[in-house]
Amino acid sequence: MNRTALQQCSYGVYIISAQGSGKLNGQIANTVCQVTSDPATVSVCINKQNLTHELISGSRAFSVSILAEETPMQFIGRFGFKSGRDTDKFEGISYRMGPSKSPIVLDHATSYMDCELAGSMDAGTHTIFLGRVVDAEVVGDGRPMTYEHYHNVKGGKSPKTAPTYAGAGGDDTTEKKGETMASYKCNICGYVYDPAEGDPDTGIGAGTAFEDLPYSWVCPTCGAAITEFEKMA
Amino acid sequence: MNRTALQQCSYGVYIISAQGSGKLNGQIANTVCQVTSDPATVSVCINKQNLTHELISGSRAFSVSILAEETPMQFIGRFGFKSGRDTDKFEGISYRMGPSKSPIVLDHATSYMDCELAGSMDAGTHTIFLGRVVDAEVVGDGRPMTYEHYHNVKGGKSPKTAPTYAGAGGDDTTEKKGETMASYKCNICGYVYDPAEGDPDTGIGAGTAFEDLPYSWVCPTCGAAITEFEKMA
Repeated sequence: MNRTALQQCSYGVYIISAQGSGKLNGQIANTVCQVTSDPATVSVCINKQNLTHELISGSRAFSVSILAEETPMQFIGRFGFKSGRDTDKFEGISYRMGPSKSPIVLDHATSYMDCELAGSMDAGTHTIFLGRVVDAEVVGDGRPMTYEHYHNVKGGKSPKTAPTYAGAGGDDTTEKKGETMASYKCNICGYVYDPAEGDPDTGIGAGTAFEDLPYSWVCPTCGAAITEFEKMA
Repeated sequence: MNRTALQQCSYGVYIISAQGSGKLNGQIANTVCQVTSDPATVSVCINKQNLTHELISGSRAFSVSILAEETPMQFIGRFGFKSGRDTDKFEGISYRMGPSKSPIVLDHATSYMDCELAGSMDAGTHTIFLGRVVDAEVVGDGRPMTYEHYHNVKGGKSPKTAPTYAGAGGDDTTEKKGETMASYKCNICGYVYDPAEGDPDTGIGAGTAFEDLPYSWVCPTCGAAITEFEKMA
Protein backbone atom coordinates (compact mmCIF):
# COMPACT_ATOMS: atom_id res chain seq x y z
CA MET A 1 0.00 0.00 0.00
CA ASN A 2 1.33 3.44 -0.94
CA ARG A 3 0.01 5.98 1.57
CA THR A 4 0.93 8.86 -0.74
CA ALA A 5 -2.30 8.00 -2.55
CA LEU A 6 -4.33 8.98 0.51
CA GLN A 7 -2.57 12.33 0.68
CA GLN A 8 -3.99 13.23 -2.74
CA CYS A 9 -7.51 13.72 -1.37
CA SER A 10 -8.56 17.38 -1.32
CA TYR A 11 -9.85 19.18 1.77
CA GLY A 12 -10.44 22.62 3.23
CA VAL A 13 -9.24 24.01 6.57
CA TYR A 14 -11.88 24.61 9.25
CA ILE A 15 -12.32 25.45 12.92
CA ILE A 16 -14.85 23.17 14.63
CA SER A 17 -16.22 24.75 17.82
CA ALA A 18 -18.43 23.55 20.66
CA GLN A 19 -19.13 24.35 24.30
CA GLY A 20 -20.00 22.70 27.59
CA SER A 21 -19.97 23.54 31.33
CA GLY A 22 -19.31 27.18 30.51
CA LYS A 23 -16.21 26.30 28.49
CA LEU A 24 -15.80 27.32 24.83
CA ASN A 25 -13.42 25.36 22.63
CA GLY A 26 -12.47 24.89 19.01
CA GLN A 27 -10.02 22.88 16.95
CA ILE A 28 -8.72 22.73 13.40
CA ALA A 29 -10.18 20.03 11.15
CA ASN A 30 -9.79 19.35 7.45
CA THR A 31 -12.37 16.58 7.03
CA VAL A 32 -15.65 18.48 6.64
CA CYS A 33 -18.13 17.30 3.99
CA GLN A 34 -21.61 18.28 3.01
CA VAL A 35 -23.64 15.06 3.24
CA THR A 36 -27.14 15.96 2.08
CA SER A 37 -28.65 18.97 0.38
CA ASP A 38 -32.23 18.71 1.71
CA PRO A 39 -32.07 19.15 4.62
CA ALA A 40 -28.55 20.56 4.59
CA THR A 41 -26.26 18.34 6.66
CA VAL A 42 -22.48 18.23 7.05
CA SER A 43 -20.12 15.66 8.56
CA VAL A 44 -16.87 16.20 10.43
CA CYS A 45 -14.35 13.70 11.73
CA ILE A 46 -12.98 14.34 15.25
CA ASN A 47 -10.36 12.48 17.30
CA LYS A 48 -11.80 10.93 20.46
CA GLN A 49 -8.91 12.31 22.55
CA ASN A 50 -9.81 15.91 21.75
CA LEU A 51 -11.75 18.20 24.09
CA THR A 52 -13.91 19.23 21.13
CA HIS A 53 -15.07 15.59 20.84
CA GLU A 54 -16.21 15.66 24.46
CA LEU A 55 -18.01 18.99 24.01
CA ILE A 56 -19.80 17.98 20.79
CA SER A 57 -20.95 14.71 22.40
CA GLY A 58 -22.19 16.57 25.47
CA SER A 59 -23.85 19.60 23.85
CA ARG A 60 -25.04 17.70 20.74
CA ALA A 61 -24.05 20.70 18.60
CA PHE A 62 -21.04 22.22 16.85
CA SER A 63 -20.11 25.00 14.44
CA VAL A 64 -17.82 25.03 11.40
CA SER A 65 -15.84 28.16 10.46
CA ILE A 66 -14.30 28.03 6.98
CA LEU A 67 -10.87 29.67 7.16
CA ALA A 68 -9.56 32.10 4.54
CA GLU A 69 -6.24 31.59 2.72
CA GLU A 70 -4.81 34.61 4.51
CA THR A 71 -5.29 33.10 7.99
CA PRO A 72 -1.97 33.54 9.89
CA MET A 73 -0.20 30.32 10.83
CA GLN A 74 -0.14 31.32 14.46
CA PHE A 75 -3.95 31.50 14.49
CA ILE A 76 -4.11 27.99 13.02
CA GLY A 77 -1.48 26.86 15.55
CA ARG A 78 -3.56 28.23 18.41
CA PHE A 79 -6.54 26.08 17.41
CA GLY A 80 -4.67 23.17 15.85
CA PHE A 81 -1.69 22.40 18.04
CA LYS A 82 -2.85 23.26 21.55
CA SER A 83 -5.42 21.61 23.76
CA GLY A 84 -8.36 23.55 25.10
CA ARG A 85 -7.75 21.65 28.35
CA ASP A 86 -4.64 23.81 28.94
CA THR A 87 -5.63 27.13 27.37
CA ASP A 88 -8.66 29.30 26.61
CA LYS A 89 -8.54 29.37 22.82
CA PHE A 90 -11.40 31.92 22.62
CA GLU A 91 -9.63 34.59 24.70
CA GLY A 92 -9.36 37.79 22.67
CA ILE A 93 -10.88 36.51 19.44
CA SER A 94 -14.13 37.46 17.69
CA TYR A 95 -16.96 34.96 17.86
CA ARG A 96 -20.72 34.78 18.15
CA MET A 97 -23.02 32.22 19.76
CA GLY A 98 -25.16 30.41 17.16
CA PRO A 99 -28.73 29.12 17.45
CA SER A 100 -27.31 25.67 18.28
CA LYS A 101 -25.68 27.38 21.32
CA SER A 102 -22.22 26.67 19.89
CA PRO A 103 -19.59 29.41 19.67
CA ILE A 104 -18.71 30.38 16.08
CA VAL A 105 -15.21 31.72 15.32
CA LEU A 106 -15.42 34.81 13.07
CA ASP A 107 -11.75 35.89 12.87
CA HIS A 108 -10.25 34.88 9.50
CA ALA A 109 -13.46 33.03 8.50
CA THR A 110 -15.02 33.34 5.05
CA SER A 111 -18.22 31.57 6.13
CA TYR A 112 -19.67 29.50 8.93
CA MET A 113 -22.25 26.79 9.50
CA ASP A 114 -23.95 26.23 12.83
CA CYS A 115 -25.13 22.65 13.38
CA GLU A 116 -27.24 20.51 15.68
CA LEU A 117 -26.00 16.93 16.04
CA ALA A 118 -28.06 14.56 13.87
CA GLY A 119 -26.01 11.38 14.21
CA SER A 120 -22.58 9.94 14.80
CA MET A 121 -20.52 6.94 13.72
CA ASP A 122 -17.74 5.28 15.68
CA ALA A 123 -14.65 4.97 13.48
CA GLY A 124 -11.99 3.70 15.89
CA THR A 125 -9.69 6.55 16.92
CA HIS A 126 -12.18 9.10 15.52
CA THR A 127 -15.93 9.74 15.42
CA ILE A 128 -17.77 11.02 12.37
CA PHE A 129 -20.32 13.57 13.59
CA LEU A 130 -23.29 14.40 11.36
CA GLY A 131 -24.78 17.87 11.85
CA ARG A 132 -28.00 19.42 10.60
CA VAL A 133 -27.19 22.98 9.50
CA VAL A 134 -29.44 25.40 11.42
CA ASP A 135 -27.66 28.57 10.34
CA ALA A 136 -25.04 29.48 7.71
CA GLU A 137 -23.61 32.83 6.72
CA VAL A 138 -20.86 34.33 4.57
CA VAL A 139 -18.81 36.62 6.83
CA GLY A 140 -15.67 37.46 4.84
CA ASP A 141 -14.61 37.88 1.24
CA GLY A 142 -11.36 35.90 1.22
CA ARG A 143 -10.81 32.66 -0.67
CA PRO A 144 -11.42 29.53 1.41
CA MET A 145 -8.11 27.91 2.32
CA THR A 146 -7.49 24.44 0.95
CA TYR A 147 -5.50 21.87 2.89
CA GLU A 148 -3.05 21.78 -0.02
CA HIS A 149 -2.52 25.55 0.34
CA TYR A 150 -1.92 25.10 4.09
CA HIS A 151 0.74 22.46 3.45
CA ASN A 152 2.42 23.60 0.26
CA VAL A 153 2.13 27.39 0.33
CA LYS A 154 2.11 28.07 4.07
CA GLY A 155 4.34 25.12 5.09
CA GLY A 156 1.82 23.78 7.61
CA LYS A 157 2.05 20.41 9.38
CA SER A 158 -0.49 17.85 10.63
CA PRO A 159 -0.69 16.96 14.33
CA LYS A 160 -0.58 13.30 15.31
CA THR A 161 -4.31 13.33 16.13
CA ALA A 162 -5.35 14.32 12.57
CA PRO A 163 -7.18 11.79 10.35
CA THR A 164 -4.60 12.55 7.66
CA TYR A 165 -1.45 12.36 9.83
CA ALA A 166 1.20 10.80 7.60
CA GLY A 167 3.56 9.43 10.25
CA ALA A 168 7.06 10.43 11.30
CA GLY A 169 8.79 12.37 8.58
CA GLY A 170 5.81 12.09 6.27
CA ASP A 171 5.20 15.79 6.38
CA ASP A 172 8.81 16.87 6.19
CA THR A 173 9.90 15.90 2.73
CA THR A 174 10.27 19.39 1.32
CA GLU A 175 12.56 20.83 3.95
CA LYS A 176 15.84 22.45 2.98
CA LYS A 177 18.89 22.80 5.17
CA GLY A 178 21.00 25.87 5.77
CA GLU A 179 24.46 25.23 4.39
CA THR A 180 26.44 25.83 7.55
CA MET A 181 23.89 26.72 10.26
CA ALA A 182 21.78 24.07 11.94
CA SER A 183 18.00 23.70 11.59
CA TYR A 184 15.89 23.37 14.73
CA LYS A 185 12.65 21.45 15.05
CA CYS A 186 9.65 22.36 17.20
CA ASN A 187 8.88 19.52 19.63
CA ILE A 188 5.21 20.49 19.71
CA CYS A 189 4.23 20.61 16.04
CA GLY A 190 7.24 19.48 14.04
CA TYR A 191 7.84 22.86 12.34
CA VAL A 192 11.47 23.22 11.28
CA TYR A 193 13.26 26.57 11.58
CA ASP A 194 15.62 26.72 8.62
CA PRO A 195 18.22 29.53 8.96
CA ALA A 196 18.51 29.67 5.15
CA GLU A 197 14.89 30.85 5.05
CA GLY A 198 14.48 32.66 8.37
CA ASP A 199 10.93 33.60 9.36
CA PRO A 200 9.97 36.48 7.06
CA ASP A 201 6.47 36.81 8.61
CA THR A 202 8.00 38.10 11.84
CA GLY A 203 10.85 40.05 10.23
CA ILE A 204 13.53 37.37 10.69
CA GLY A 205 15.63 37.55 7.53
CA ALA A 206 17.06 34.65 5.56
CA GLY A 207 20.47 33.68 6.93
CA THR A 208 19.58 34.27 10.60
CA ALA A 209 21.03 31.51 12.80
CA PHE A 210 18.61 29.92 15.28
CA GLU A 211 20.96 31.05 18.05
CA ASP A 212 20.51 34.66 16.97
CA LEU A 213 16.69 34.64 17.17
CA PRO A 214 15.20 36.88 19.85
CA TYR A 215 14.20 34.95 22.95
CA SER A 216 10.61 36.15 22.51
CA TRP A 217 10.37 34.47 19.10
CA VAL A 218 7.73 31.73 18.97
CA CYS A 219 7.03 28.86 16.59
CA PRO A 220 5.18 30.38 13.59
CA THR A 221 3.06 27.24 13.24
CA CYS A 222 1.94 26.48 16.79
CA GLY A 223 3.10 29.42 18.90
CA ALA A 224 5.39 27.27 21.10
CA ALA A 225 8.21 29.04 22.96
CA ILE A 226 11.74 29.00 21.54
CA THR A 227 12.74 26.64 24.36
CA GLU A 228 10.60 23.92 22.75
CA PHE A 229 13.01 23.67 19.80
CA GLU A 230 15.62 20.99 19.39
CA LYS A 231 18.68 20.98 17.13
CA MET A 232 18.40 18.61 14.19
CA ALA A 233 21.12 16.06 13.52
CA MET B 1 -29.47 30.74 6.20
CA ASN B 2 -27.13 31.56 3.32
CA ARG B 3 -26.38 28.38 1.39
CA THR B 4 -23.43 30.03 -0.35
CA ALA B 5 -21.55 29.31 2.88
CA LEU B 6 -21.90 25.58 2.30
CA GLN B 7 -20.46 25.94 -1.20
CA GLN B 8 -17.19 27.20 0.28
CA CYS B 9 -16.21 23.76 1.55
CA SER B 10 -13.31 22.25 -0.41
CA TYR B 11 -13.43 18.82 -2.04
CA GLY B 12 -11.73 16.67 -4.65
CA VAL B 13 -13.32 14.81 -7.59
CA TYR B 14 -13.40 11.02 -7.41
CA ILE B 15 -14.88 7.94 -9.09
CA ILE B 16 -16.37 5.50 -6.58
CA SER B 17 -16.68 1.98 -8.03
CA ALA B 18 -18.25 -1.25 -6.88
CA GLN B 19 -19.61 -4.49 -8.36
CA GLY B 20 -22.37 -7.02 -7.87
CA SER B 21 -24.07 -9.83 -9.86
CA GLY B 22 -21.41 -9.57 -12.57
CA LYS B 23 -22.08 -5.86 -13.05
CA LEU B 24 -19.34 -3.22 -12.68
CA ASN B 25 -20.36 0.35 -11.92
CA GLY B 26 -18.86 3.64 -10.85
CA GLN B 27 -20.01 7.19 -10.14
CA ILE B 28 -18.52 10.62 -9.52
CA ALA B 29 -18.36 11.79 -5.90
CA ASN B 30 -16.75 14.80 -4.28
CA THR B 31 -17.29 13.92 -0.62
CA VAL B 32 -14.38 11.59 0.16
CA CYS B 33 -12.53 12.05 3.47
CA GLN B 34 -9.79 10.17 5.23
CA VAL B 35 -11.25 9.32 8.67
CA THR B 36 -8.47 7.58 10.56
CA SER B 37 -4.76 7.13 9.96
CA ASP B 38 -4.24 3.83 11.81
CA PRO B 39 -5.78 1.79 10.36
CA ALA B 40 -6.29 3.90 7.22
CA THR B 41 -10.00 4.44 6.65
CA VAL B 42 -11.93 6.74 4.31
CA SER B 43 -15.56 7.81 4.15
CA VAL B 44 -17.70 8.56 1.12
CA CYS B 45 -21.22 9.88 0.88
CA ILE B 46 -23.51 8.17 -1.69
CA ASN B 47 -27.11 8.88 -2.72
CA LYS B 48 -29.46 6.01 -1.90
CA GLN B 49 -31.02 6.19 -5.39
CA ASN B 50 -27.71 5.40 -7.10
CA LEU B 51 -26.78 1.96 -8.40
CA THR B 52 -23.37 2.36 -6.74
CA HIS B 53 -25.17 2.56 -3.36
CA GLU B 54 -26.84 -0.79 -4.05
CA LEU B 55 -23.55 -2.37 -5.15
CA ILE B 56 -21.52 -1.11 -2.17
CA SER B 57 -24.21 -2.33 0.23
CA GLY B 58 -24.30 -5.73 -1.45
CA SER B 59 -20.57 -6.34 -1.99
CA ARG B 60 -19.48 -4.55 1.20
CA ALA B 61 -16.57 -3.00 -0.73
CA PHE B 62 -15.74 -0.05 -2.99
CA SER B 63 -12.81 1.70 -4.63
CA VAL B 64 -11.92 5.39 -4.91
CA SER B 65 -10.08 6.74 -7.98
CA ILE B 66 -8.69 10.26 -7.52
CA LEU B 67 -9.15 12.10 -10.83
CA ALA B 68 -6.48 14.34 -12.38
CA GLU B 69 -7.11 17.98 -13.35
CA GLU B 70 -6.76 17.03 -17.02
CA THR B 71 -9.70 14.59 -16.94
CA PRO B 72 -11.97 15.37 -19.94
CA MET B 73 -15.46 16.60 -19.07
CA GLN B 74 -17.02 13.84 -21.14
CA PHE B 75 -15.29 11.22 -18.99
CA ILE B 76 -16.69 12.89 -15.88
CA GLY B 77 -20.09 13.10 -17.56
CA ARG B 78 -20.02 9.37 -18.35
CA PHE B 79 -19.61 8.53 -14.66
CA GLY B 80 -21.43 11.50 -13.16
CA PHE B 81 -24.52 12.13 -15.22
CA LYS B 82 -25.56 8.67 -16.42
CA SER B 83 -26.94 5.74 -14.52
CA GLY B 84 -25.20 2.38 -14.60
CA ARG B 85 -28.69 0.91 -14.82
CA ASP B 86 -28.92 2.16 -18.44
CA THR B 87 -25.33 1.89 -19.63
CA ASP B 88 -22.11 -0.07 -19.05
CA LYS B 89 -19.81 2.67 -17.78
CA PHE B 90 -16.77 0.35 -17.78
CA GLU B 91 -16.97 -0.50 -21.49
CA GLY B 92 -13.71 0.45 -23.19
CA ILE B 93 -11.97 1.98 -20.18
CA SER B 94 -8.89 0.82 -18.24
CA TYR B 95 -9.49 -0.67 -14.82
CA ARG B 96 -8.20 -3.39 -12.54
CA MET B 97 -9.92 -5.53 -9.92
CA GLY B 98 -8.66 -4.77 -6.39
CA PRO B 99 -8.20 -7.12 -3.42
CA SER B 100 -11.65 -6.00 -2.16
CA LYS B 101 -13.02 -7.42 -5.47
CA SER B 102 -14.09 -3.92 -6.53
CA PRO B 103 -13.21 -2.56 -9.97
CA ILE B 104 -10.76 0.37 -9.87
CA VAL B 105 -10.87 2.99 -12.65
CA LEU B 106 -7.34 3.78 -13.88
CA ASP B 107 -8.04 6.17 -16.79
CA HIS B 108 -7.32 9.79 -15.74
CA ALA B 109 -6.59 8.71 -12.14
CA THR B 110 -3.64 10.03 -10.15
CA SER B 111 -4.14 7.46 -7.35
CA TYR B 112 -6.62 4.96 -6.05
CA MET B 113 -7.70 3.38 -2.77
CA ASP B 114 -9.39 -0.02 -2.58
CA CYS B 115 -11.63 -0.44 0.47
CA GLU B 116 -13.58 -3.05 2.40
CA LEU B 117 -16.72 -1.73 4.06
CA ALA B 118 -16.14 -1.07 7.78
CA GLY B 119 -19.35 0.75 8.67
CA SER B 120 -22.16 2.95 7.38
CA MET B 121 -24.39 5.74 8.68
CA ASP B 122 -27.87 6.58 7.45
CA ALA B 123 -28.06 10.28 6.60
CA GLY B 124 -31.50 10.64 5.00
CA THR B 125 -31.16 10.84 1.22
CA HIS B 126 -27.55 9.64 1.44
CA THR B 127 -25.48 7.04 3.28
CA ILE B 128 -21.98 7.68 4.61
CA PHE B 129 -19.93 4.56 3.91
CA LEU B 130 -16.75 3.97 5.92
CA GLY B 131 -14.09 1.88 4.18
CA ARG B 132 -10.92 0.27 5.51
CA VAL B 133 -8.20 0.84 2.90
CA VAL B 134 -6.80 -2.56 1.83
CA ASP B 135 -4.74 -1.25 -1.09
CA ALA B 136 -3.65 2.18 -2.35
CA GLU B 137 -1.39 3.16 -5.22
CA VAL B 138 -0.23 6.21 -7.15
CA VAL B 139 -0.91 5.52 -10.82
CA GLY B 140 -0.47 8.88 -12.59
CA ASP B 141 1.56 12.04 -12.20
CA GLY B 142 -1.14 14.67 -12.76
CA ARG B 143 -2.42 17.06 -10.10
CA PRO B 144 -5.54 15.84 -8.27
CA MET B 145 -8.58 17.77 -9.48
CA THR B 146 -10.34 19.89 -6.89
CA TYR B 147 -14.11 20.39 -6.98
CA GLU B 148 -13.44 24.12 -7.34
CA HIS B 149 -11.34 23.45 -10.45
CA TYR B 150 -14.16 21.29 -11.87
CA HIS B 151 -16.68 24.10 -11.37
CA ASN B 152 -14.68 27.25 -12.01
CA VAL B 153 -12.04 26.21 -14.56
CA LYS B 154 -13.83 23.39 -16.40
CA GLY B 155 -17.37 24.79 -16.02
CA GLY B 156 -18.75 21.59 -14.48
CA LYS B 157 -22.19 21.18 -12.88
CA SER B 158 -23.60 19.14 -10.00
CA PRO B 159 -26.36 16.58 -10.61
CA LYS B 160 -29.48 16.73 -8.46
CA THR B 161 -28.38 13.63 -6.54
CA ALA B 162 -25.11 15.23 -5.30
CA PRO B 163 -24.71 16.12 -1.61
CA THR B 164 -23.64 19.59 -2.71
CA TYR B 165 -26.42 20.23 -5.26
CA ALA B 166 -27.25 23.92 -4.94
CA GLY B 167 -30.76 23.92 -6.42
CA ALA B 168 -32.14 25.41 -9.62
CA GLY B 169 -29.90 28.13 -10.96
CA GLY B 170 -27.44 27.71 -8.13
CA ASP B 171 -24.77 26.40 -10.43
CA ASP B 172 -25.40 28.80 -13.27
CA THR B 173 -24.32 32.17 -11.99
CA THR B 174 -21.22 32.55 -14.15
CA GLU B 175 -22.78 31.95 -17.54
CA LYS B 176 -22.40 34.50 -20.30
CA LYS B 177 -24.78 35.00 -23.19
CA GLY B 178 -23.95 35.35 -26.86
CA GLU B 179 -24.93 38.82 -27.97
CA THR B 180 -27.36 37.89 -30.72
CA MET B 181 -27.45 34.08 -30.83
CA ALA B 182 -29.41 32.06 -28.29
CA SER B 183 -27.87 29.82 -25.64
CA TYR B 184 -29.17 26.27 -25.26
CA LYS B 185 -29.34 24.25 -22.07
CA CYS B 186 -28.83 20.50 -21.68
CA ASN B 187 -31.91 18.93 -20.08
CA ILE B 188 -29.81 16.14 -18.59
CA CYS B 189 -27.06 17.99 -16.75
CA GLY B 190 -27.78 21.70 -17.02
CA TYR B 191 -24.73 22.53 -19.18
CA VAL B 192 -25.32 25.66 -21.25
CA TYR B 193 -24.02 25.92 -24.82
CA ASP B 194 -23.03 29.55 -25.27
CA PRO B 195 -22.44 30.45 -28.95
CA ALA B 196 -20.10 33.25 -27.84
CA GLU B 197 -17.76 30.58 -26.48
CA GLY B 198 -18.45 27.58 -28.74
CA ASP B 199 -16.99 24.25 -27.63
CA PRO B 200 -13.25 24.54 -28.25
CA ASP B 201 -12.55 21.01 -26.95
CA THR B 202 -14.35 19.53 -29.95
CA GLY B 203 -13.20 22.14 -32.47
CA ILE B 204 -16.39 24.26 -32.35
CA GLY B 205 -15.15 27.84 -32.62
CA ALA B 206 -16.45 30.84 -30.68
CA GLY B 207 -19.37 32.45 -32.54
CA THR B 208 -20.89 29.16 -33.76
CA ALA B 209 -24.69 29.26 -33.46
CA PHE B 210 -26.29 26.24 -31.78
CA GLU B 211 -28.25 25.67 -34.98
CA ASP B 212 -24.98 25.28 -36.90
CA LEU B 213 -23.55 22.56 -34.65
CA PRO B 214 -23.11 19.16 -36.31
CA TYR B 215 -25.94 16.78 -35.45
CA SER B 216 -23.37 14.35 -33.99
CA TRP B 217 -22.27 16.94 -31.42
CA VAL B 218 -22.93 15.85 -27.85
CA CYS B 219 -23.05 17.67 -24.52
CA PRO B 220 -19.43 18.16 -23.41
CA THR B 221 -20.42 17.66 -19.77
CA CYS B 222 -22.66 14.59 -19.83
CA GLY B 223 -22.50 13.25 -23.39
CA ALA B 224 -26.24 13.78 -24.02
CA ALA B 225 -27.40 14.02 -27.65
CA ILE B 226 -27.98 17.44 -29.24
CA THR B 227 -31.71 16.67 -29.17
CA GLU B 228 -31.63 16.94 -25.36
CA PHE B 229 -30.96 20.70 -25.57
CA GLU B 230 -33.57 23.39 -25.08
CA LYS B 231 -33.42 27.03 -26.10
CA MET B 232 -33.04 29.41 -23.18
CA ALA B 233 -35.41 32.33 -22.71
